[in-house]
Amino acid sequence: MTDAVTMTLAEIEDLAFRALTAAGTSDENARPLAHATAWTEADGIASHGLAYIPIYCEHVRCGKVDGTAQPRITRPAPSVIAADAATGFAHPAIALGFQTLKETARQQGVAVLAVKNSYNCGVLGYHTEQLANDRLLAIGFTNAPASIAPVGGRRPVVGTNPFSIAAPDENGNAAVLIDQSASVVAKSEIMKHAREGLPIPPEWALDPVGSPTTDPDIALKGSMAPTGGYKGVGVALLVEIMAAAMTGATLGIHASPFSGTKGGPPRTGQFFMAINPDVTSGDLFSERLTALVEAMRDQPGVRVPGDGRKAARLRADREGVAVNPGTLARVESWC
Amino acid sequence: MTDAVTMTLAEIEDLAFRALTAAGTSDENARPLAHATAWTEADGIASHGLAYIPIYCEHVRCGKVDGTAQPRITRPAPSVIAADAATGFAHPAIALGFQTLKETARQQGVAVLAVKNSYNCGVLGYHTEQLANDRLLAIGFTNAPASIAPVGGRRPVVGTNPFSIAAPDENGNAAVLIDQSASVVAKSEIMKHAREGLPIPPEWALDPVGSPTTDPDIALKGSMAPTGGYKGVGVALLVEIMAAAMTGATLGIHASPFSGTKGGPPRTGQFFMAINPDVTSGDLFSERLTALVEAMRDQPGVRVPGDGRKAARLRADREGVAVNPGTLARVESWC
Repeated sequence: MTDAVTMTLAEIEDLAFRALTAAGTSDENARPLAHATAWTEADGIASHGLAYIPIYCEHVRCGKVDGTAQPRITRPAPSVIAADAATGFAHPAIALGFQTLKETARQQGVAVLAVKNSYNCGVLGYHTEQLANDRLLAIGFTNAPASIAPVGGRRPVVGTNPFSIAAPDENGNAAVLIDQSASVVAKSEIMKHAREGLPIPPEWALDPVGSPTTDPDIALKGSMAPTGGYKGVGVALLVEIMAAAMTGATLGIHASPFSGTKGGPPRTGQFFMAINPDVTSGDLFSERLTALVEAMRDQPGVRVPGDGRKAARLRADREGVAVNPGTLARVESWC
Repeated sequence: MTDAVTMTLAEIEDLAFRALTAAGTSDENARPLAHATAWTEADGIASHGLAYIPIYCEHVRCGKVDGTAQPRITRPAPSVIAADAATGFAHPAIALGFQTLKETARQQGVAVLAVKNSYNCGVLGYHTEQLANDRLLAIGFTNAPASIAPVGGRRPVVGTNPFSIAAPDENGNAAVLIDQSASVVAKSEIMKHAREGLPIPPEWALDPVGSPTTDPDIALKGSMAPTGGYKGVGVALLVEIMAAAMTGATLGIHASPFSGTKGGPPRTGQFFMAINPDVTSGDLFSERLTALVEAMRDQPGVRVPGDGRKAARLRADREGVAVNPGTLARVESWC
């Protein structure tokens, strides 16, 4: 393997921006996505960073994403913002919605943003953290094509559907950042094992009749195992109801795949809540959150959710990010 | 074992009301708790029904709960309701808060209720369902004394902390009602095994140094296993942040036990969100929710979350509820 190439965050953002616009994405739509790509690399989540740019470019080309879409924002009630991503990227719709969401949450104490006709939003915690940086408590949900079957069933009804919560400290840093999917592992892990011809642990996935399998190819025709059995399905259902039913987006059972070029726009959704914690708690929030975090940090070997990303980001600020040369070449080929 | 006694819901509510008031609970505080007790029995959740009344009565007597507390409601922002349960029962504070919450959610599109200085709220889904009956999408969180350790740690930092979501159909029935704790099993299951001198499965709990144990007595000195490993801890943290930090209630690490008579009021909290689904979804919510429920119901052997309670309630309406005579005697002894 060739040595990794070290890049600054500005260089990563610039490269992502050039590839996206070369593929036919408008400047306004490429900018928030390129920024998220750089931050995702900084957070050490390479799987969702530059590696996704060639897929995004391909999806603009094939029409799975409208690169020049103009997201539209409405305010159907005093504390509700609705965004129609118009089959464009999720990032510009979310970024536009967040401008109004932040202001509205400050005025009303709580506000929600419902995004429909959208696409894979990348790392969900990237978005909730933007709200925490404004000293708002943020919860986010996003749905995906169905891949998890209900307990006792065989046919997937919900995606690996993550939720995220970002809880701000007094300086607007995320003191706790939880961002977790409802499956035991990410589907991409199973695809990776399939490519490499390796077996998977039996607790990762189920075959088409609902039995555990160690064959990744059979797993991809079956379903992903929910984490914690029926309670994992419960979390995935919570997310599906919020991200799809509550937004008027497409359910996971009807959404086209996020991978490949077929099926047109997935039109999935996202739902975000932003709450002013000082208002709901009578100014006790920061003291309580600090005590909770300390009770974890006091114990050797315990990591507070979000610690891994923070450490990676400090390293990236100091040393830049090591990018896989193969990934880099694939992104550059679009420029 | 003596035969069960069959009672109507009205009889159960009346009995619970008489026991609670005889123990020193005011009529206004006893009514919502007695009503919840009858509905919990109807839903087939006997562990949280009449069986809890002697504990509630004892807690009023010993001062863990102020039976004559007067919950206070404020509205610190247009979409935020805050309730101070004043160390009384959770039910009257929640019921009072819900009156304003429902109206506010209709006006604003979304509203939240933050309850502090509260107590065990019984079955969380009982409360979220009240909001669904008003055709609002409801999410609820409640915290409990710490019993789950973070992964890699030994000391509990969060309770078995349940969340609930109730999603209404067009008639205001809960089409989906999820109500699940963050632990593999309820702590009461481990207590039951300890009383009966039976071993527990190794996946239920951990000993004081963080290793799996099959001894229920050792488990009660250690911690409850989270469902799905670190992702279960993530759900419990989400709930703790919402129910305690966001309300200004007491964290699970500082709360007095819900069982026994020592330690004074636990002062834990609840957080509820009520959202008008037609507003956020542009009137697409019901169609989406129906399709999601049908995708589950189409598969033989799959139960939609909430189906069990619904079936039990129909049976209770038709045939009454079978009450354990020992439980009945213990409740009657308070009257």
